[in-house]
Amino acid sequence: MRILIDGMGGDNSPEAIVKGVVNAAADLDSNITLSILGPEETIRKLLKKDKYKNKGKGAVIEVINCTEVISCDESPAMAVKRKKNSTIVVGMDLLREKKADAFISAGSTGALLAGGLLHLGRIHGIKRPGIAAWIPRIGKEGTTLLLDCGASVETKPEYLLQYGIMGSLFVKGVKGIERPSVKLLNIGAEDAKGDELHKTANQLLRESNINFCGNIEGRDVVFGDCDVVVTDGFSGNIFIKGTEGMALAIMKQFKKKLSEGTIAKAGAMLAYNKIKEIKNEFDYSYVGGAPILGLKAPVLKIHGNSESVDIYYAIMKSIPYVENDITGMIAEAVARNKEL
Amino acid sequence: MRILIDGMGGDNSPEAIVKGVVNAAADLDSNITLSILGPEETIRKLLKKDKYKNKGKGAVIEVINCTEVISCDESPAMAVKRKKNSTIVVGMDLLREKKADAFISAGSTGALLAGGLLHLGRIHGIKRPGIAAWIPRIGKEGTTLLLDCGASVETKPEYLLQYGIMGSLFVKGVKGIERPSVKLLNIGAEDAKGDELHKTANQLLRESNINFCGNIEGRDVVFGDCDVVVTDGFSGNIFIKGTEGMALAIMKQFKKKLSEGTIAKAGAMLAYNKIKEIKNEFDYSYVGGAPILGLKAPVLKIHGNSESVDIYYAIMKSIPYVENDITGMIAEAVARNKEL
Repeated sequence: MRILIDGMGGDNSPEAIVKGVVNAAADLDSNITLSILGPEETIRKLLKKDKYKNKGKGAVIEVINCTEVISCDESPAMAVKRKKNSTIVVGMDLLREKKADAFISAGSTGALLAGGLLHLGRIHGIKRPGIAAWIPRIGKEGTTLLLDCGASVETKPEYLLQYGIMGSLFVKGVKGIERPSVKLLNIGAEDAKGDELHKTANQLLRESNINFCGNIEGRDVVFGDCDVVVTDGFSGNIFIKGTEGMALAIMKQFKKKLSEGTIAKAGAMLAYNKIKEIKNEFDYSYVGGAPILGLKAPVLKIHGNSESVDIYYAIMKSIPYVENDITGMIAEAVARNKEL
Repeated sequence: MRILIDGMGGDNSPEAIVKGVVNAAADLDSNITLSILGPEETIRKLLKKDKYKNKGKGAVIEVINCTEVISCDESPAMAVKRKKNSTIVVGMDLLREKKADAFISAGSTGALLAGGLLHLGRIHGIKRPGIAAWIPRIGKEGTTLLLDCGASVETKPEYLLQYGIMGSLFVKGVKGIERPSVKLLNIGAEDAKGDELHKTANQLLRESNINFCGNIEGRDVVFGDCDVVVTDGFSGNIFIKGTEGMALAIMKQFKKKLSEGTIAKAGAMLAYNKIKEIKNEFDYSYVGGAPILGLKAPVLKIHGNSESVDIYYAIMKSIPYVENDITGMIAEAVARNKEL
């Protein structure tokens, strides 16, 4: 298996990326190759600094020389057309030619989507790929898959149906849950709630073969009573960024307040392990990459501010994605239901 | 000034409502009358229990007998047509007849909106009222007004423009900020981001006379760098419920984890004051009611699970709403700009 990692995307590239790859390689088998895409000389220097050596055990790391990088300020469609030697274009081309099995990038979401659509392509029958994210469950085991987080800006009811099907298959594939429960993010729990888009989507999901359990309101998502939450790209994006911002703000306040004064500091030291446990529970970085579902091969988008630990977890999460051939499962499901 | 309080709305009515009114009355002047709407005998018993007595100082409390209640399960439009003696219908009628100055209710949002539209009416020129909510700012002074939270399910660009104008006037009126900064909740910070609705709304807001400062992403709202956030009712509802759910989940986890084991417990005791400070910072109940802007008189919706403290703060917040005649200011602004 060969996993491609964009060495140049995100705020902490290439240092954090290379470090994450080296850490992951140590915990993987030698039948896995991790290919870092980026300027060869720079990447090799970092590999040396991080003391990577191919010792015959652990995953093999290789470097694929890419001289161009697509920045977040560029027009995604223009950039993927022009920059043929960028990490994103080279990565998508390698996937299309079946020379690699998955691609992980902290680069611009727009460029990843444009590159995916133009250089890799959609699964036949899929109208619009969806960006899925793992939402932490507070006070409960596991995570909830939420899609779409922003790939579909103008969403149609059929997209939401396809997100339900793809999300269901993805969770089945990576978690082994036979019939994952799916809910639709809406402004009320009753079936008749919401705008026309969500009312129609609710009906389509009810009529489908997946385990659809009705609407879910924003307040209930983090309490995690279903496996998949379907949402349009606009409100999905608002939801995920809003809850992330809130979690981040609260943790920042805890850090600040608990270092004010000797007594609070002493208290924080005593409760340190428990506070750490809570922090980890809703730390999005442990969750490991957002799959862009509906493309012809596994593509995982990680946060622009990803650290080495995020790269590590994204690599680990990409393996069952490939091993269980989720892309093939989605293609098959779509082919079976011609009306999709 | 006469403020009406729905004695029967919400999960903790009428007990928590009456208690909140009694507490508020003690801190107000005798030129203010607080009228509780509900079954007279029950309300009077509770007033007695809470030891309320008209002693010539503090606000005067009176009871307006209403024999019907609209529940959350009823069709709002049907219920406000049928139940003429319900707290919501009587309240809206009193406002329309100018026999009262403001109405506070923890009842069904749908019924309040339907009652407001059918029995009180919109300000001339306002296309759709908007429910505004105060968002706590984490680590910063003050709060941010976000609207609409769910009154407009199918939103048009002109509604968003009107929300910007109404929000701006409201914040000016209650906080005395001369030119409140207004941003549009969107999936990207650049003007050209988002769907057609938000792209057009961005343009309309840019061309208006308010202090529009561009788009804001979900992640940045709680960090509070503007006074008003404009959003369509669908994503606004998802945002507010999502962030509330996250804040609630984290606080629940802190409570649980910090009572596990003697050491954590001791730590939590030492850091108690600081933890309490943080809790208060993002405790939505201290924020005090969501005004439904665009109706012909001040109407404040409070949470269904409101406690007496929420009633107390909502009453306090309703006073500058009335004193500064924000409804009049909105009506005037709309009349000035005929194109609205």
